[in-house]
Amino acid sequence: MTTLCIANNRTEEMVGDPTGAMPLELRYAGCGAQRMLWWAEDGDVLVLPWGPDPEYLAYVTGLTGVRADSLTFVVPPPGDQGDQVLTADRLVDPGFLAELGRALDGRTVDRVLAVSPNGAAAELAAALGVAHAMPGLDFAAQGGNALVNSKAGFRALAAGAGVPIPPGRVAGSPAEVEAAVEHLLGQGHSVMLKVEYQVGGRGNEILARDERVEAVGAERVVPLPDRAAVAAYVAERWSWLTAGRGQRVVVERYFPDCAPLYAEFAISDKAVVLSGCGEMVMRPVVVGEITPPVTPDAGAWAELVQLGARLGESLRVIGYRGTVSADAVLTPKGEIYFHETNGRLTGSSHLHDVFRGRLLREEHRGSRHLLELAGLKVPSFAEAVAETGAAGLAFDRQRGTGVLFSSDFGPADGSVMYCAVAESPEAARTLETALLALFA
Amino acid sequence: MTTLCIANNRTEEMVGDPTGAMPLELRYAGCGAQRMLWWAEDGDVLVLPWGPDPEYLAYVTGLTGVRADSLTFVVPPPGDQGDQVLTADRLVDPGFLAELGRALDGRTVDRVLAVSPNGAAAELAAALGVAHAMPGLDFAAQGGNALVNSKAGFRALAAGAGVPIPPGRVAGSPAEVEAAVEHLLGQGHSVMLKVEYQVGGRGNEILARDERVEAVGAERVVPLPDRAAVAAYVAERWSWLTAGRGQRVVVERYFPDCAPLYAEFAISDKAVVLSGCGEMVMRPVVVGEITPPVTPDAGAWAELVQLGARLGESLRVIGYRGTVSADAVLTPKGEIYFHETNGRLTGSSHLHDVFRGRLLREEHRGSRHLLELAGLKVPSFAEAVAETGAAGLAFDRQRGTGVLFSSDFGPADGSVMYCAVAESPEAARTLETALLALFA
Repeated sequence: MTTLCIANNRTEEMVGDPTGAMPLELRYAGCGAQRMLWWAEDGDVLVLPWGPDPEYLAYVTGLTGVRADSLTFVVPPPGDQGDQVLTADRLVDPGFLAELGRALDGRTVDRVLAVSPNGAAAELAAALGVAHAMPGLDFAAQGGNALVNSKAGFRALAAGAGVPIPPGRVAGSPAEVEAAVEHLLGQGHSVMLKVEYQVGGRGNEILARDERVEAVGAERVVPLPDRAAVAAYVAERWSWLTAGRGQRVVVERYFPDCAPLYAEFAISDKAVVLSGCGEMVMRPVVVGEITPPVTPDAGAWAELVQLGARLGESLRVIGYRGTVSADAVLTPKGEIYFHETNGRLTGSSHLHDVFRGRLLREEHRGSRHLLELAGLKVPSFAEAVAETGAAGLAFDRQRGTGVLFSSDFGPADGSVMYCAVAESPEAARTLETALLALFA
Repeated sequence: MTTLCIANNRTEEMVGDPTGAMPLELRYAGCGAQRMLWWAEDGDVLVLPWGPDPEYLAYVTGLTGVRADSLTFVVPPPGDQGDQVLTADRLVDPGFLAELGRALDGRTVDRVLAVSPNGAAAELAAALGVAHAMPGLDFAAQGGNALVNSKAGFRALAAGAGVPIPPGRVAGSPAEVEAAVEHLLGQGHSVMLKVEYQVGGRGNEILARDERVEAVGAERVVPLPDRAAVAAYVAERWSWLTAGRGQRVVVERYFPDCAPLYAEFAISDKAVVLSGCGEMVMRPVVVGEITPPVTPDAGAWAELVQLGARLGESLRVIGYRGTVSADAVLTPKGEIYFHETNGRLTGSSHLHDVFRGRLLREEHRGSRHLLELAGLKVPSFAEAVAETGAAGLAFDRQRGTGVLFSSDFGPADGSVMYCAVAESPEAARTLETALLALFA
């Protein structure tokens, strides 16, 4: 039994217009795509934007217990945007399709697992004759993944499911955006403005009138002292806000001082099953997370899961299959507001599916806290692994604690993403401190 | 108990970009909006694009048994597009809101019934303090109606629900449209191309290679002998296909010689209930219909209803409330393919809700066939009614047969829309022939 893994991180359904990205942005996304290695099992076939780095491959398979030489990697030729991410044009290259067909020949593909289960992944599965193995293929093939990831469409689905969302609206014209922004600012609130398709807070901006606001979940806070300033801002940013192609704009009340949370689910034909919850670390946009979350009490946690599952059920009924993360904020008053769903393997999925689900022994799964952060500069991935091991900080399966290196962002900026696994949030922080000291 | 009726025919969710319409198009839509009078009951308050024509009002209320002087009509000042249809800008006019507030003062509004239950209708209901009376308001307020009426979104929802759709895809770029069109033409099929938001076939074009195709459901057939012709067509029509604002384009196989059918449902919190089915009369786009449909056998009819209800259930779960029509074609081979849902009071709703539901006595409802067509030129609405009555052709409640005049398109082109009610499809045709002879 073979899984066909498609590491199509950074698709149009995630980030909107796929053209015009900065090369470095594409390289980060390509490094993130290599996390698909964590899901591989013996004999699987992986479509990657580029061939895996041997050190990273050895590290990952060493932990998952997979025979690295049993894996087959197929890399399509570069596309219009180069060779950093798996754009749709790369997945239809005839030579690539032939090579992938040969790689699958004689195997029984029982699962197609894509980072983004989108139309391009569905077309690839169909072209290879393994359509049956991709859950939700029909929905994906007709552009369904865009529905699941649209921050505008989200507000309707959530409202329709009775799931609380921040006060605000979806706006289609500069006049509507201006009126909606002014309405919230005039009430003394600050505003979160969102581009319909983006990831990691990159499509968000916070607008404020007099309030002093700390940006969380957006790159910056834009002060807009009066309506004229709002109008000028909207006019100036219109092309960015609509991704230059008429997309709708989300205008929401921004709640400061919140805990940013998510609940992630696996959606199958019959059920919506919780994978895990977490709390994001924002500086000012997401740089990491801790799972389970630390801020919510039992009541808030239960509400997060229950409401997130309700969103998942709407997505299940319309035909989405796969992983979905429902993102929310918990306000200082204890209110929960949801603000998007992400239908893909997210930046958290490997923590639940692999670190907890495969690396932790069953008796440890309920009692381990995972603190993951990006941006640790290291001499090289291999040296990071070696030094951490020499210092006795590496993850140990028997104890179920220690440091894991989830991603190698070496090709982008010489950094790694690390995950401290410990018996409490405090112990995870202590472990992190020891790790950081190694590379200070 | 009062119903607030909002005759907002021809909204953005129906036709896309609301600006730039031809004046005559707007006038037709405004005439259609007056059909809201058929739903009125004693004491209701109606928001109309213009005040009702006295003859039409007297005719409708004479049949529904409503006291015309118990109805209150509120007409907002003209908006950016004039006074023919209820555009969103007209519904926020402060003077209008004040007048409508006074009209509702002292009444208990237990229902808000909009032609298009969209964001503007939701805002109006909220502004008047009657949000509780509009089913699905939260979904509508967040742009949900656009989801229900999008021909692109439809394909994902239908595929996700396992409802058959014509082979094809949703395309976002000229290259994608070209490839998808060429793929179907190259297989020897003709192609239906659809603008994401439009009504009455106005956003559709049929493309053919060698086949001789009769246009049904689109204004024209465009011959495209080779791929270069496809590319040139897509380039030339790109702005029209995307409504000049980056909308997605639907590319589907076109099935000739089909029966165009629909099943219409009322969606409430708990259930999806069939209102009725019909078969469209196309010349080449829809000019009328007959209900119940005549072409499908019992098996096809049951399939139409069962699959339509499945679409309705998806819409119920995501939060839509109100009337929805699921449109399909029945091919000569007996296959059914669905091609859109319309979330609004449609051109058929008055036939089911009012003609069958209120004008026909209960014992006649199961045994009457309604043939409705637009475009009968008459000297005036009043004369049409008088002459039909004098000729003994007018609808008679006791017999449950005769001619009804559903719409007065006099202000647009001097025509009326008529409905022949009879005991069989043939008898309805005979009655129609007699009617047409009166005004030949």
